[in-house]
Amino acid sequence: MYWSEYFIPTLKEDPKEAEVASHKFMIRAGLIRKLSAGIYSYLPLGLRVLRNIENIIRRVMNDKGAIEIFLPAIHPLNIWQISGRDKTLIEDVGYSFKDRHNNTFVLGPTHEEVITDLVRGEIKSYRQLPLILYQIQTKFRDEPRPRFGVVRSKEFIMKDAYSFDKDEEGLDKSYKKMYEAYSEILEECHLPYIAVEADPGMMGGKESVEFMIPAESGEDMIAHCKKCGYSASLEQAECLKPPKTRKKEQKPLKQVTTLSTYTVEGVSKLLKQKPSSLVKTLIYKIDGGFIAVLIRGDKTINESKLKRVLNCEDLKLASEREIEKVTKAPLGFAGPVGLKDIRIIADYQVANMSNFITGANEKDKHLINVNLDRDLKINEFYDLRYIDKDDECPRCKNKIQIRRTMEIGHIFKLGMRYSKDMKANFLDKDGKEKPIIMGCYGIGVNRLLAAIIELNHDDNGIIWPLEVAPFKVLVLPVDRSCKVYDLAQKIYKDLKTEGIEVLFDDRDLQAGFKFKDADLIGIPYQVIIGPKSLEKGKVELKIRRGNKRRLIDKQEVGFTLKKLLTS
Amino acid sequence: MYWSEYFIPTLKEDPKEAEVASHKFMIRAGLIRKLSAGIYSYLPLGLRVLRNIENIIRRVMNDKGAIEIFLPAIHPLNIWQISGRDKTLIEDVGYSFKDRHNNTFVLGPTHEEVITDLVRGEIKSYRQLPLILYQIQTKFRDEPRPRFGVVRSKEFIMKDAYSFDKDEEGLDKSYKKMYEAYSEILEECHLPYIAVEADPGMMGGKESVEFMIPAESGEDMIAHCKKCGYSASLEQAECLKPPKTRKKEQKPLKQVTTLSTYTVEGVSKLLKQKPSSLVKTLIYKIDGGFIAVLIRGDKTINESKLKRVLNCEDLKLASEREIEKVTKAPLGFAGPVGLKDIRIIADYQVANMSNFITGANEKDKHLINVNLDRDLKINEFYDLRYIDKDDECPRCKNKIQIRRTMEIGHIFKLGMRYSKDMKANFLDKDGKEKPIIMGCYGIGVNRLLAAIIELNHDDNGIIWPLEVAPFKVLVLPVDRSCKVYDLAQKIYKDLKTEGIEVLFDDRDLQAGFKFKDADLIGIPYQVIIGPKSLEKGKVELKIRRGNKRRLIDKQEVGFTLKKLLTS
Repeated sequence: MYWSEYFIPTLKEDPKEAEVASHKFMIRAGLIRKLSAGIYSYLPLGLRVLRNIENIIRRVMNDKGAIEIFLPAIHPLNIWQISGRDKTLIEDVGYSFKDRHNNTFVLGPTHEEVITDLVRGEIKSYRQLPLILYQIQTKFRDEPRPRFGVVRSKEFIMKDAYSFDKDEEGLDKSYKKMYEAYSEILEECHLPYIAVEADPGMMGGKESVEFMIPAESGEDMIAHCKKCGYSASLEQAECLKPPKTRKKEQKPLKQVTTLSTYTVEGVSKLLKQKPSSLVKTLIYKIDGGFIAVLIRGDKTINESKLKRVLNCEDLKLASEREIEKVTKAPLGFAGPVGLKDIRIIADYQVANMSNFITGANEKDKHLINVNLDRDLKINEFYDLRYIDKDDECPRCKNKIQIRRTMEIGHIFKLGMRYSKDMKANFLDKDGKEKPIIMGCYGIGVNRLLAAIIELNHDDNGIIWPLEVAPFKVLVLPVDRSCKVYDLAQKIYKDLKTEGIEVLFDDRDLQAGFKFKDADLIGIPYQVIIGPKSLEKGKVELKIRRGNKRRLIDKQEVGFTLKKLLTS
Repeated sequence: MYWSEYFIPTLKEDPKEAEVASHKFMIRAGLIRKLSAGIYSYLPLGLRVLRNIENIIRRVMNDKGAIEIFLPAIHPLNIWQISGRDKTLIEDVGYSFKDRHNNTFVLGPTHEEVITDLVRGEIKSYRQLPLILYQIQTKFRDEPRPRFGVVRSKEFIMKDAYSFDKDEEGLDKSYKKMYEAYSEILEECHLPYIAVEADPGMMGGKESVEFMIPAESGEDMIAHCKKCGYSASLEQAECLKPPKTRKKEQKPLKQVTTLSTYTVEGVSKLLKQKPSSLVKTLIYKIDGGFIAVLIRGDKTINESKLKRVLNCEDLKLASEREIEKVTKAPLGFAGPVGLKDIRIIADYQVANMSNFITGANEKDKHLINVNLDRDLKINEFYDLRYIDKDDECPRCKNKIQIRRTMEIGHIFKLGMRYSKDMKANFLDKDGKEKPIIMGCYGIGVNRLLAAIIELNHDDNGIIWPLEVAPFKVLVLPVDRSCKVYDLAQKIYKDLKTEGIEVLFDDRDLQAGFKFKDADLIGIPYQVIIGPKSLEKGKVELKIRRGNKRRLIDKQEVGFTLKKLLTS
């Protein structure tokens, strides 16, 4: 490809809107352009990388026996009503609209409903199972805060797969296959990944694993143990039940005036105690009633865990008015002592505390030296908080690390979550009708692209791994003298004839400018033809990764590159 | 690929909803399934053909120097407001919706606005021109009457290309390149096509050609001359100015009572005259005023031609009330004689008529023996009607044919239609800022698929042309005896090793059922392994096109097929 006839609009300056390296370089290297917040056009170089990534995914998926299909992007709302996700996912991030006949449609943010609808029409017997179908397709989500370029965008490409099995054992096998597929895809893209236990959340089902890439630009925090490899999303990561410690001597319970101070920070400062001496009392609204949840002052409640403990889908912090109704005190002064007609549960850590501070259920008042059993009775202790850097690994008790990561893939065991509601049944060996057991598996294609850049760049630009590089070789004549240019063209043509994807920088520009662009767009191998080295019959080979240079005989360019590209 | 592990849900019966062969076979052969009216999922076999077609398109486009990109499907409404097409195309067939911030977005039915927005940010100088960009992408249109499966659907895949040039001469070159590209694509897909002059319509611009496939299921009629090859859409096809004939003797003008009869058919019957003796007077509303248009009673007005003559975009038949205002008579009795304060134009044919019949501008009355010059004066005659089977070819005067066709591609010279409104300018050699001269070029990928089936099938199923076939060879063991099945498997594996795309019908079904499915899905070559021929060391090769069969040595299957596939 001749650069002058191609469309690679590079930029010298960092775009203002770009906060992270991948976003910055995707714009500067002419991979993407923004149409609107969170909506991007792919220019030729970006599209080539995208297609390379898609082909890696496709190859691995096909190897695992998954079968490619292509589902519609617009869905009638009614199939979302059957699963009930019209009220959750669609209300949250769905784009919906009416057609000329006043029927409501939805732009697919994911395809569980559509694929279940398709499969229930075709799968009748256990003989047709197992089956794994996948597609590579554009998804749409009305992101509240699109950011980091294509990392969090409103229109993005996903590979989504769905497995169909006759029983849980089959699902385990399909799930394992997809786990392996995702590992292989990420390895082929040269991305170190961490597979973490995750909360199935909006998808439903009971088991899920996220594939995370460590990245400063990531939006997800995970708990990771360097020693044993344990990894889990913060939503999911288990906090160990602390060992029973000997309780301190119980001091007399006392009410103190804290006036308008009611934050943990404020109260602990005022009373000259650490935040860890406080117990926060949070009032939640649940299924029409209320519940009080106790947690140590310096810790954060994990609502995913709370939902699992309470076995509910809807959970909301009570409003100020509701808190007053329940505790008879304004917001900030709730406490468990004397609280009546309400279920009280507490985080494990609270069980070990003595002489702690709580709200007094009275305006401007707190209680100090509160002690369990003496001042209040609690029967239910659970793991209710977020893990943090002070915690131990729940598996090996080594110190846990909290790391920033980017979610690239997510796999779920759905079980009968969709097949039951949508009546996607099959006849088993014994002639019994049963719901198909499903799994679903998503990987973000554009995110993979961004992650690759995040982990493969230097100050000057992108450093593509060979497998995904838009071109493998860049031929760069330093000037337009006949000797230099003709040789460059000959090398370019020879490489092309060899079937190597090669870009020829034939632009009539200063060498310095071309060098900068070359590093920016990050083609793995640069063949630089200049008059000086040419005097010695040599051309320069620059390897973008590490920026190593070496001189090679001008006759040996093809041979050397072929060796490098196949090794 | 093993059939039993793949997903090809064939159907024995024709689906009720399918009216045409392509729709019927796409469903029966398991290529597509309907999600909702005009919205289809592609199953594995359909997707494979789609990808093959896309790759043909891609190869030809790249050969012509066009560069592939990928634009967003959701567009902010405001870029459509700049071109003014928010009021035409979007109101007509656009899906639009609001996001969480109450901004309006549109699902792209085409991409002139988006690409012009992209290019105006990147193209600054004539040095960057010419440029042809294209994409293969899903488009969305709220079709009033989706039909024929994927032929007229709400969500469909298009290859759309856009050319950018510095002048009309450049546009001519780009346009020619794309014309050639479309011809090559259709030839590679084995589709006979007719390139017809067409009306640019909604796209704007001044010149356009449609690529049509003769097909009974088509929705477009074209005028075509067998002798000289002239082809044009009915909108566009020129009607020759009839040669001046000697006028008949003028009879005296007379008013007759026709009572409530006012249709051409009714009046001509009542007065015992041919419809061709009548002149219809149509009142149109245009830019606030009215115009009367005269046309022979048996012909149909062509509003595209009328718009071009009047040089207006908006044109509407007057309402009953407006007609009464203008003609002082109810609908059906308008006539040109005595009509005041209104511009009157007529079709060429009217100029040659004598003693014709018109409305009398009075309720229940017509005039007979009307004659030009004597009874009314008309100064403007134009080509205003649709061509029909009685016409001659406007080029060679041979008899014209009216044929039913399916539109597959459409190319347009847009000129400055979008670049001017959207300020997509470049600096010319002389430093002057000028709007980029554009062209746009679309081809329907799913329609190509349907057209291929329309023109390549028999009663039993599809007959794929080799280039687009989902698999090139089908291996079909007649039974599951070891001898037969093992040889079949060996042949399958050998062909696969040779890199041939081969499907193995390993299903435990009766031979008759497998034969029927084989013909239905239309793989070009069937290798049938049965006990009888095997006794003689032979297997059967069935060529789907023509259903020719021959016996070949079991050792020679690979050799024979390789020869057939590369010849």
